[in-house]
Amino acid sequence: MASINDIGVAAAINIVTAIAFLLAFAILRIQPVNDRVYFPKWYLKGLRSSSIQTGGFGSKFINLDFRSYVRFLNWMPEALKMPEPELVHHAGLDSVVYLRIYLLGLKIFFPIACVAFTAMVPVNWTNKGLDRLKHTNISYSDIDKLSLSNIPNGSGSRFWVHLCMAYAITFWTCFMLKREYQNIALMRLQFLANDERRPNQFTVLVRNIPTDPHESICELVEHFFKVNHPDHYLTYQAVHDSTKLSELVQKRKQMQNLLDYNINKHMRTQSKRPIIKMGFLGCCGEQVDGIKYYTSMVESLTREISEEKQRLRTGTKSIVPAAFVSFKSRWGAAVCAQTEQSRDPTEWLTEWAAEPRDIYYDNLALPYVDLKIRRIIVAIAYFFLTFFFMIPIAFVQSLANIEGIEKAFPFLKPLIEVKFFKSIIQGFLPGIALKIFLMFLPRILMQMSKFEGFVSTSSLERRAASRFYMFQFINVFLGSIVTGTAFQQLNRFLNQSANDIPKTIGVSIPMKATFFITYIMVDGWAGVAGEILRLKPLIIYHLKNSFLVRTENDREEATDAGTIGFNTGEPQIQLYFLLGLVYAAVSPILLPFIILFFALAYVVYRHQVINVYNQNYESAGKFWPDVHRRVVTALIVSQLLLTGLLSTKQASKSTPFLLVLPVLTIGFHMHCKCRYQPAFVRYSLQEAMIKDTLERTREPNLNLKAFFRNAYAHPEFRVGEDLELEMAVEKPDKTPELVATKRGSWRNTPLPSSKHSCPYSP
Amino acid sequence: MASINDIGVAAAINIVTAIAFLLAFAILRIQPVNDRVYFPKWYLKGLRSSSIQTGGFGSKFINLDFRSYVRFLNWMPEALKMPEPELVHHAGLDSVVYLRIYLLGLKIFFPIACVAFTAMVPVNWTNKGLDRLKHTNISYSDIDKLSLSNIPNGSGSRFWVHLCMAYAITFWTCFMLKREYQNIALMRLQFLANDERRPNQFTVLVRNIPTDPHESICELVEHFFKVNHPDHYLTYQAVHDSTKLSELVQKRKQMQNLLDYNINKHMRTQSKRPIIKMGFLGCCGEQVDGIKYYTSMVESLTREISEEKQRLRTGTKSIVPAAFVSFKSRWGAAVCAQTEQSRDPTEWLTEWAAEPRDIYYDNLALPYVDLKIRRIIVAIAYFFLTFFFMIPIAFVQSLANIEGIEKAFPFLKPLIEVKFFKSIIQGFLPGIALKIFLMFLPRILMQMSKFEGFVSTSSLERRAASRFYMFQFINVFLGSIVTGTAFQQLNRFLNQSANDIPKTIGVSIPMKATFFITYIMVDGWAGVAGEILRLKPLIIYHLKNSFLVRTENDREEATDAGTIGFNTGEPQIQLYFLLGLVYAAVSPILLPFIILFFALAYVVYRHQVINVYNQNYESAGKFWPDVHRRVVTALIVSQLLLTGLLSTKQASKSTPFLLVLPVLTIGFHMHCKCRYQPAFVRYSLQEAMIKDTLERTREPNLNLKAFFRNAYAHPEFRVGEDLELEMAVEKPDKTPELVATKRGSWRNTPLPSSKHSCPYSP
Repeated sequence: MASINDIGVAAAINIVTAIAFLLAFAILRIQPVNDRVYFPKWYLKGLRSSSIQTGGFGSKFINLDFRSYVRFLNWMPEALKMPEPELVHHAGLDSVVYLRIYLLGLKIFFPIACVAFTAMVPVNWTNKGLDRLKHTNISYSDIDKLSLSNIPNGSGSRFWVHLCMAYAITFWTCFMLKREYQNIALMRLQFLANDERRPNQFTVLVRNIPTDPHESICELVEHFFKVNHPDHYLTYQAVHDSTKLSELVQKRKQMQNLLDYNINKHMRTQSKRPIIKMGFLGCCGEQVDGIKYYTSMVESLTREISEEKQRLRTGTKSIVPAAFVSFKSRWGAAVCAQTEQSRDPTEWLTEWAAEPRDIYYDNLALPYVDLKIRRIIVAIAYFFLTFFFMIPIAFVQSLANIEGIEKAFPFLKPLIEVKFFKSIIQGFLPGIALKIFLMFLPRILMQMSKFEGFVSTSSLERRAASRFYMFQFINVFLGSIVTGTAFQQLNRFLNQSANDIPKTIGVSIPMKATFFITYIMVDGWAGVAGEILRLKPLIIYHLKNSFLVRTENDREEATDAGTIGFNTGEPQIQLYFLLGLVYAAVSPILLPFIILFFALAYVVYRHQVINVYNQNYESAGKFWPDVHRRVVTALIVSQLLLTGLLSTKQASKSTPFLLVLPVLTIGFHMHCKCRYQPAFVRYSLQEAMIKDTLERTREPNLNLKAFFRNAYAHPEFRVGEDLELEMAVEKPDKTPELVATKRGSWRNTPLPSSKHSCPYSP
Repeated sequence: MASINDIGVAAAINIVTAIAFLLAFAILRIQPVNDRVYFPKWYLKGLRSSSIQTGGFGSKFINLDFRSYVRFLNWMPEALKMPEPELVHHAGLDSVVYLRIYLLGLKIFFPIACVAFTAMVPVNWTNKGLDRLKHTNISYSDIDKLSLSNIPNGSGSRFWVHLCMAYAITFWTCFMLKREYQNIALMRLQFLANDERRPNQFTVLVRNIPTDPHESICELVEHFFKVNHPDHYLTYQAVHDSTKLSELVQKRKQMQNLLDYNINKHMRTQSKRPIIKMGFLGCCGEQVDGIKYYTSMVESLTREISEEKQRLRTGTKSIVPAAFVSFKSRWGAAVCAQTEQSRDPTEWLTEWAAEPRDIYYDNLALPYVDLKIRRIIVAIAYFFLTFFFMIPIAFVQSLANIEGIEKAFPFLKPLIEVKFFKSIIQGFLPGIALKIFLMFLPRILMQMSKFEGFVSTSSLERRAASRFYMFQFINVFLGSIVTGTAFQQLNRFLNQSANDIPKTIGVSIPMKATFFITYIMVDGWAGVAGEILRLKPLIIYHLKNSFLVRTENDREEATDAGTIGFNTGEPQIQLYFLLGLVYAAVSPILLPFIILFFALAYVVYRHQVINVYNQNYESAGKFWPDVHRRVVTALIVSQLLLTGLLSTKQASKSTPFLLVLPVLTIGFHMHCKCRYQPAFVRYSLQEAMIKDTLERTREPNLNLKAFFRNAYAHPEFRVGEDLELEMAVEKPDKTPELVATKRGSWRNTPLPSSKHSCPYSP
């Protein structure tokens, strides 16, 4: 086990790394050339059109105003300055609620840490439980003296302190959780009440429309809702199967990029036209003029796209059995979304439509049986992924050793035998397969959710987050404590009695404190500092900028604002909640590290939310029940493990007192679920009626039908309309390179325009 | 273990008992004097007004037509004669669906038994596994030779037969369950679609109406629904807190009974008027004229009742925060019942109102927080009841031994010391506390459900049935197999690994086959035969008839038709499903006994449903999801136990194959739940709209408001109206003894009047 010195060294290294990242960020962000990387949000909102230029040519790229370097840490207070209501307006409720998870961490752990250090650490410290290990082989450190391990077995009265602490932790956590749930439910309701008119408020997604030999799907939808919602039904929008269209648009985008690249090349070297080869990978074959070739490709694809679009618009064969049905009032939509439509519960399934930008169109057509089968397949696949993911990785690792490489690629042998390379390969290679897998894991989980058939990006992310959390819980948390692959653990647990499982895990917990401290510093501190630096988007932006960008539009295209990434970020935070709650009563030394993580992450993510991240969707904090549930789960796990740990310390008198806690916590969770969850799932008729009545008074002659026109059209259709519009406006003989593919532009249209001007210029 | 001979003797005894019961029934039922005991259903439906009289005075009481004694078993084919649709009309869908549980048992177990006896029994019989026990102390019998115990350990290939059998059982059971679920869902939907107009189709029960300082509850309800359901709201009916009224009515009923008794006495001995004493228990004190005294009492109570009723009608203080809100259409009610009304999910809770006769009025006023707390209290109480019920019983038993009685009541000593009494006391007393407890258990569970706050009798019975089943599963099934109190089992299971629990139970299963055979004969066969004899109602009816009855109305009052008793009957059937499924692959010898039970019970209960039971409510088979779930649970338990049993037989190769089964079964259950359960929980808007449209076409000028008037008034109010009506019609100086308390009369009013005449005269 590591001593305080070791921890100090590790902390120093990580603090230095984090500070280096932060410094690099502070310098890079004030360079005008990086403006679009570090302030893309303002560009997306249209509040900044191009980087601020204060001086001559040089100052267009590099900041020469040296005073600004002095204020390089200014971003921190600036990030905290924007008040919450304005932040909701600026970045949406989702982001604000997401930030509150970090705040919740601070609110829970700061008081717990204070109490733990004043009340519990002295009790642990003044014992000699570990002294008996002095003459054995087991090493221990001063850090362990702060933990529960230092209390000798059977000293019952001392454990009462820990018992009280466990109660205090439970009550405080539950209190904070409840307050937060209440606040966020209220924020959500207020947000929805004050929200401006949006198509999704009036619209219901209908899936599994039955087939009828006598009527087309459109007629069927029209008739069904006219009959069953006679006073409220307004209009519907069919969903087309636009796989082919998406492919064509994708292909045109590629061609457009290549065309741009060639034109740029030509503009730099005015003398000769770029020549490309038509053969394999552009290495051989006939030579043609690059610009001409790609221009013709883009033109023919554009034609094909508009033909395909025409086909989709006029034909009925491509219509899938799903539709967006809009109502005259929010009340009508609320009724339709919450009720059963048909006597067959597998037909005419209705649910609130997500925002147009949130819809995941590919899954709309899935029939009921498919959905069920896919769910089972994904459940099985996820089980194997979680419990057996080590098998293929171990296999790759066994292949990817030095001998294996030398056998497969004999010509590399002289290179590999160089000592420097050898040590690198030996040091990194075994881990690299695992690292790559873990890097791709969120994407794999996202693909799983997509396969499972969710119909909105927000629900995809929520499901992927749940799965990622479970994976981390089993493979990172339990895996580090119990050591062994998840499957070995499962096998062991199945062969142990229900009583023994918390004991087995509980006993190893105090011993792993130092490991988790290091984990927090590497994964948490350095990770957060790395997040603000945005190294990957920075590099990609500059690459694109030099090869593809010609117009401001292209530059906008090249800007990747990124998103808050709920499916990767939230499970990470939850791991820290779990660690904090588990170690709070055992080794409170972990708490300061976690608190520091939460504080740093809060500032960093607040800055990112204000200046960087684009919002892909607005779910009005719909993910909070998940967050709440996972913290409660962590609390229950911590209580069970403490029970297990104390029962091995011959303090089994405390077991019944500790077993009360999970029961209370489950009761608390059920209460919160009944009390607050409906606000996140359903939309009450009262609220709908209030909003309807207000609107009817304000705008009595509103033409809703026009408002819904094409609101839920497939994004490619919307791309098409922009395009056709531009084509109509522009002259026909214009070079096609200025035809922008605005595929991403639908993203930011429905955002409320901020009244807030950009005060965060570098 | 019992030999075949022992089983044969037990079977003979039980068969003789059952036949004796059936014979007694056959004779008693054709006596005109018992007509109201054995055919009360026809009286309730008004299709028979008094017992059929064919001869002189004697034949009024005793059947002198000796030919009818020859046809004494006629009731069996007669019970089966009535076709199902007619039975639905005659006794309601609930009864028909209930009878189908028995049919389901036959459908599942008859084919399984055939296959088991042709395929599995020979495999078991031709082994010598038990022969090795010949020289040990463990006794075994020929019956065990038919079971899996007879296969020696490790003879793997023979176990494949059992494995295939387990698969066959699972698939067949699931197939039958699915078909039955489908059928019953369809029957329910058809029943609801063809049902005549009833208040509950238009009405929603609203609970937890918030308090408002400016408005009364009535105004609040009116305003809320006028605002939020402007096009559909019609009227509401407030709920009064009528505890005091109920008490008064109850007391008047008692007084009325005493008055009737005294008048009857007077009529028999015309000479002297009955005298009663006013003191303690009527033993001492002042003497008064009985008829005069009770007449004045009844009169004053009637006055008090009408005053109380007036108070309730005019005052608003007694109104509880719950109301029955009626809508103009079924569509409006369906919408209101399925949607969230207010942003606060603890207020304005709406649900479909049950039928007026199904409503349990006492729980309507419970506030949200109370409900939650009560649920927790009941959960804890139920846990202790299930796991620790033996403690108080053991305590009573320890007191109630001979020494204890002799100590407490020394004067009884000479009596007790008589050998005959001594042996009776020693034989019966220890068991009697347990017997009494088990007799009262369904009532205790019913009281628990009432305390928990359910608002309809049907839901009370469903919940009580769930609890009763769990109790039987733990204390009868597991208790008999593992032996030991439930708490001892729990403790043992907690200290065993998850792998070992099925093994422990599985191993003891084959050994308990003979015990359960005896159990089925005593509890099943004799119990069912006792059910048809109706000994208790018979005695009570004749007692009441001789002391209280003067008019036909009184006789009607004295008739206790009883109900089908879902909360006691269904858990019993489920125990047989469990036994059948568990033993089907282990000791198929149990199956014929179970099949015989199902067949006998089906005939008996069909007869009872046609001729005896009164329907307290009509839930249109709403309990079927519970039935389905419990059979599926039994199937999963049987699979796990077979896995455990086979793994101890050194046939662990089969374990993975067997573990697939529970997974498949859970999948099957989830599928059925998604597919069919909504038909039992929600009411689709399409159905509602169809029924509304039809009605609007047929009766365009329907006055719905009048239809709802007092539909949901408290039963005591309805009693009152009958009474006042009668008082108004009758002359004021009329003797009050003819004022009938028609408290029970609301029961049968909303039943569809049967077009079926009574063909079942004796």
